[in-house]
Amino acid sequence: MSLSEFSIIEKYFMRRATTRRDVSLGIGDDAAILDVPDGLQLVTTTDTLIEDIHFPAETNPGAIGYKSLAVNLSDLAAMGAEPAWVTLSLSLPDAREDWLDAFSNDFLDLCEKSGVQLVGGDTVSGPLVITVQVMGFVPAGKALRRDAAKPGDRIFVTGTLGDAALALRLRKEQETALSGYTELLRRLEYPEPHVSYGIALRDIANAVIDISDGLAADLGHILARSGVGATIHIDQIPVSHALQVCCNQLGLTQIDGRVPELVLAGGDDYELCFTVPEDRIENLQALERFALAVTEIGVIEPMEGLRCVAADGEPVALQRFGYQHFSE
Amino acid sequence: MSLSEFSIIEKYFMRRATTRRDVSLGIGDDAAILDVPDGLQLVTTTDTLIEDIHFPAETNPGAIGYKSLAVNLSDLAAMGAEPAWVTLSLSLPDAREDWLDAFSNDFLDLCEKSGVQLVGGDTVSGPLVITVQVMGFVPAGKALRRDAAKPGDRIFVTGTLGDAALALRLRKEQETALSGYTELLRRLEYPEPHVSYGIALRDIANAVIDISDGLAADLGHILARSGVGATIHIDQIPVSHALQVCCNQLGLTQIDGRVPELVLAGGDDYELCFTVPEDRIENLQALERFALAVTEIGVIEPMEGLRCVAADGEPVALQRFGYQHFSE
Repeated sequence: MSLSEFSIIEKYFMRRATTRRDVSLGIGDDAAILDVPDGLQLVTTTDTLIEDIHFPAETNPGAIGYKSLAVNLSDLAAMGAEPAWVTLSLSLPDAREDWLDAFSNDFLDLCEKSGVQLVGGDTVSGPLVITVQVMGFVPAGKALRRDAAKPGDRIFVTGTLGDAALALRLRKEQETALSGYTELLRRLEYPEPHVSYGIALRDIANAVIDISDGLAADLGHILARSGVGATIHIDQIPVSHALQVCCNQLGLTQIDGRVPELVLAGGDDYELCFTVPEDRIENLQALERFALAVTEIGVIEPMEGLRCVAADGEPVALQRFGYQHFSE
Repeated sequence: MSLSEFSIIEKYFMRRATTRRDVSLGIGDDAAILDVPDGLQLVTTTDTLIEDIHFPAETNPGAIGYKSLAVNLSDLAAMGAEPAWVTLSLSLPDAREDWLDAFSNDFLDLCEKSGVQLVGGDTVSGPLVITVQVMGFVPAGKALRRDAAKPGDRIFVTGTLGDAALALRLRKEQETALSGYTELLRRLEYPEPHVSYGIALRDIANAVIDISDGLAADLGHILARSGVGATIHIDQIPVSHALQVCCNQLGLTQIDGRVPELVLAGGDDYELCFTVPEDRIENLQALERFALAVTEIGVIEPMEGLRCVAADGEPVALQRFGYQHFSE
C-alpha cells in the first residue's frame, strides 16, 4: 500500500507527539520555528543510517527507528547538551505499513523518554536511508568538547565496551545460539544514550567523546584535538559478563581477559569516554545516583600518542586494532 | 580512489569556509555549538535528494550540490528567515574526486553567496543520497506562515512558472535541441532561492509558501491551512519567453497561452507564492529594488477551494492537474 508523504507523517509520526512549549511551529509549514532560551547555545548533530551498510536488511524496524535517534542523542550527551528537537528524513523503498508502524513506535518511544519533539522532516521514495538531526541546548560556554584534555587528567569510560561489536560478529558468523547473544544484540540494536550523565559531567569533565568507532579511535580524537597523549590499561577496560562468556566459548585470543579488537576497536558502543582532572575526581561520587558503571582506565600525558599496556607492563600493539597516531 | 570521511570533509568542504561569528564550534567535534541571538527564533528545514528519483544519474554534480542547498534556502525564504548554518549528510557510492570537487564547489559557492556556514554533517558510503538541513533566524513572531491568508488578500507569485517542469519533460523526451532548452535547464538545475525577497516580505505578506510541487498544490496548502479559498486567472500566471517558444514548437495544448499542467502542476519552480492584504499592496513597490518580477494572479476568498478561470470566464478543471481540494 502506498501512502502520501503527508499521511505517513500524520499517521505514524504525529500520533503521540511530545509537545514542547519552545516549539512555536512544528511539522506542516515550510520550516519549523523554534525558541532557543536566552543564555543557552544551540547544539546540533546529524547521523545517517543506511540499509546493508549500517544495519542488515533483516534488522527489526523498531531497532532502526530507535537507533537512528539514539546515536544522535549520544552525540549530544558527549557535548553535555540537553536534547530538545529532532528532524527525520526518511527514504523508503515502499511505504510498508507494518514497517512504518514498528519504526515510528520505537522512534517515538525514545522521543518521549528524552523529552524530544519531532519538528520536521522529509519522506521520500528511494533506498532505505534514515537521516536524523537532533538539536539541543547547553549553557553558554559549558559544552564539553574534545579538545580540552589536560596532562594528569584521569580517563574514564561508562558501561562496558565491545558488546555491540561482538553481537555484529556473531550475527555475521551465524553464531546466534551462543549463550549471551541476546544480551549482546540488545546492546547493538538499542544502545542507551547517556544524556543525563553527559549533562552532569558539565562541571566535572575536561574532554568528552562518545565511543562510536571504538575506544582507540575515539580517545585518539580527544588526544589529537587536545595535543596530548595517554596511557590506558587493557585489564581495566570494563567488559560485560555476556561478552566474557561468549569470548571464552569461541576461544578468542585475549590479553588480560580482553579481546583487544573488540574493546579497543569494536565500535557502536555509544558509551562516553571522558577525562577528569585529579582535583575533581571526588565529584564523580555525586554521579552514582545515575547507577551507571564508570571505570577509570588510564591517564592523560604530555607525550602525544596513545599507549595501551597489559597488566604485565607489556605494550599492546594498537596499530593492529585500527589506531593511527595522527595530529590535526 | 577512496577517501576517509575526515579527508572528504577537510579536502572538499572546508577549503573555503564561510566563517560566522555565531559559530562557537563548527565541524570536528561530536556536535556543533551555535549562538542564536536573543530575541530571534530559530527556523529550520530539511530536504533529501536521491539519485534517479530527484535527479537522473547523469546530472552534473555541481548542480546537485547547488540545488541540495538551494531548495532548503527556498523554504527559509518562504518563512521570511535569514539563513545562517547548514549541515550536510552525504551518502556516496564511491568517493570519486572529480564528482566531489564539482559537487562541493557549487555547494560552497551558494554557501558564500548566502552567508551560510557548513557546521556539521556526515559522510557515508552507500547509494547517492544528499540530505541538507538549513537553520536560520527570524525576529520573534515575524515568521511568514502558510496559515495566515485572509479573504480579500491578493495573490502574487515571483518569477515565472513551469520552466523547470518543461526542462524535465524535454530531457526525458530527448528534445534537448529545442531553442530555449538551455535556459529552461538552468531553471531546473540552478533555481534561485529568493531569500532577501522573503525577508523583505515580513511586514507586507500575510501567507507565504515556496512553489516546489506546483502552484495549485502549494497555493492549495495555504488555502487549507488558512481555511479560505481563492480564484486565480490562468492568463495572469507569469511564463518565460523560453517556455512560450518551446511550447509553441512542441504544439502543446494551451489555455490563454499557458500549458496548464506546466504552470499549475509543474513543480520545482522554487518561486514564492504569497498573499498581501489590499492596504499593504503599495508597500510592494519598495521591493522593486530586488529586480524580481512579481505578478498578481488572483484573490483570496471566503469560500474554500481553489478556482482557476480563463480569460473568457470559463473554469479550468484543476483536478486534471493534480489539485485536490482538501482540508486539514
